[in-house]
Amino acid sequence: MIELNRRHLLAGVAAVGAASVARLGTTPAHAAVPQAGTQAPGFYRYKVGSYECTSINDGARTFPMPDKFVANVAKEEALAAADAAYMPKGMVTIPFNPQLINTGSKLVLIDSGNGIGNFEPSKGAVGRTLQNLAAAGVDPKSIDIVLLSHLHPDHTNGIRAADGSIAFPNAEIMVPAVDWAFWASEENASKAPNDMMKNYFANVKKTFGGIESKVTKYEWGKEVAPGITSIATPGHTPGHTSFAVASGGSTVLVQSDVTNIPELFLRNPDWHVAFDVDGPKAQETRHKFYDMAAAEKATVVGFHFTFPSVGHVEKDGAKYRLIPSAWNPTI
Amino acid sequence: MIELNRRHLLAGVAAVGAASVARLGTTPAHAAVPQAGTQAPGFYRYKVGSYECTSINDGARTFPMPDKFVANVAKEEALAAADAAYMPKGMVTIPFNPQLINTGSKLVLIDSGNGIGNFEPSKGAVGRTLQNLAAAGVDPKSIDIVLLSHLHPDHTNGIRAADGSIAFPNAEIMVPAVDWAFWASEENASKAPNDMMKNYFANVKKTFGGIESKVTKYEWGKEVAPGITSIATPGHTPGHTSFAVASGGSTVLVQSDVTNIPELFLRNPDWHVAFDVDGPKAQETRHKFYDMAAAEKATVVGFHFTFPSVGHVEKDGAKYRLIPSAWNPTI
Repeated sequence: MIELNRRHLLAGVAAVGAASVARLGTTPAHAAVPQAGTQAPGFYRYKVGSYECTSINDGARTFPMPDKFVANVAKEEALAAADAAYMPKGMVTIPFNPQLINTGSKLVLIDSGNGIGNFEPSKGAVGRTLQNLAAAGVDPKSIDIVLLSHLHPDHTNGIRAADGSIAFPNAEIMVPAVDWAFWASEENASKAPNDMMKNYFANVKKTFGGIESKVTKYEWGKEVAPGITSIATPGHTPGHTSFAVASGGSTVLVQSDVTNIPELFLRNPDWHVAFDVDGPKAQETRHKFYDMAAAEKATVVGFHFTFPSVGHVEKDGAKYRLIPSAWNPTI
Repeated sequence: MIELNRRHLLAGVAAVGAASVARLGTTPAHAAVPQAGTQAPGFYRYKVGSYECTSINDGARTFPMPDKFVANVAKEEALAAADAAYMPKGMVTIPFNPQLINTGSKLVLIDSGNGIGNFEPSKGAVGRTLQNLAAAGVDPKSIDIVLLSHLHPDHTNGIRAADGSIAFPNAEIMVPAVDWAFWASEENASKAPNDMMKNYFANVKKTFGGIESKVTKYEWGKEVAPGITSIATPGHTPGHTSFAVASGGSTVLVQSDVTNIPELFLRNPDWHVAFDVDGPKAQETRHKFYDMAAAEKATVVGFHFTFPSVGHVEKDGAKYRLIPSAWNPTI
């Protein structure tokens, strides 16, 4: 009998495993069922009152932890947090999850993902929004509104298909007025302090060039689509916006990037992700948002939470902890 | 602007929401996209070395917390733990997740789910193994081995289809020898101390009646299928078994029911679920298993963890905490 003792158990398993591999090598082939080699479709439905919402996975990127991924702590601390979250050694994983809201009268896509081919080294790992919409039975032509939380590439670039055409040809594209004013300014672009910011300005120009007439600017604190209210959560970008989706007495908070990956920035809410335009302001917003969400036991959806990206957040001393929602097999 | 202040935010949302509902009622109907009304397929793939594993969701049951659901604490404590895990007020949710292991030569299904129609009040909520296998492209006829961890109905009854025929007609059905000896004993059945136990004995008789020739009894500490080793984890039932699935230097531990739902019994490892045959023994096994799994940072799969039911477990003082694995979009 294998004892429940770590040395015995794992030694036993290793020995058995080696024997098994050796034997498999010399066993005549069975009529074995081929492995599938692909993941299940990345969509997940949940109700908010009478609204049917769908978390759409755009994929995830896993890459070596950059030196200044967390701008205001030593790399070792960031690596230790990633390791504590069981990320691959030395790496960081960032998932991306747009949300589709079917209000009954409007089909609204909140954020659009990375688009296809925009991250060459991980091509195929991201830019999966269109294929996961298709898996969910959604025709991109049926989307009425693409509601962008802010103008970073992982949120905006999916508005274009691989050939550069508009992926959602019948959709109004809504952008936060404050973010538009910031990123579309030639003066701001000329003062970009580093390559990352230069690239962000150039990306806005490229992504929205020629489609200005499709773009509507929205303000904060407004019902920007039926039951969907824009919430001012600036810092990550100047016009960064969250949304309350409300129907029939139920509300979920679509936080957008109030926190980037929760394993680092919700556990350590005072850490600043490299992509923040104004780290201290983002930090202040994060505390306000999550003190409120935790007190209200609000359901929170995070663009960078692991799929299906729906959960609750609770306080844990000076930190916060994400409790992912239970998978509902029947909605 | 809606301020990030809970009173203002939620008041604002409620007011906007009411206005929205009122307006939707009087707006001419758009050519709206119908809601889907169904969940995404419940399967999720992960690799263990060269093995392709698939977590298959059999569904989940949500029901009013029974008085003695936790046998050795007051109902209020159990309700508080469920509430802390954001379960519906006064209710408890139990998910069910068989695992499919494609070793390259054998297709092994570990546990088989509730079967269809066995829980009338929640018909449709469970018994989803066959439909989720189909969604994953798996023909039940291609399964070589159904490997049962123990002989409780939620693990065994899926071996039969709705019409009572064998759902996996070409499979060897493997049962733990110790559990078989216990549950198949007429003498034990005649001494069943309560209705629950009487039902369990009767269910074994009904489920396995007439198919004894398909049933193989396995021992603990053996390689019961290629790379799959049985681990003695008694208590929940006398022959309750976990499995180490090992390939190419990687191992996952399929814990079966070492803990029932982690929100109650991993957070509170000394609590005894009503279904335990020997609660104190199950408690002892749980501590041994999870002290080992936490120390080894082992990947653990739990039949009653929320889908996709794969994670890591860490110590948290005298408690344990499950950290669900990140969803991998590409396997």
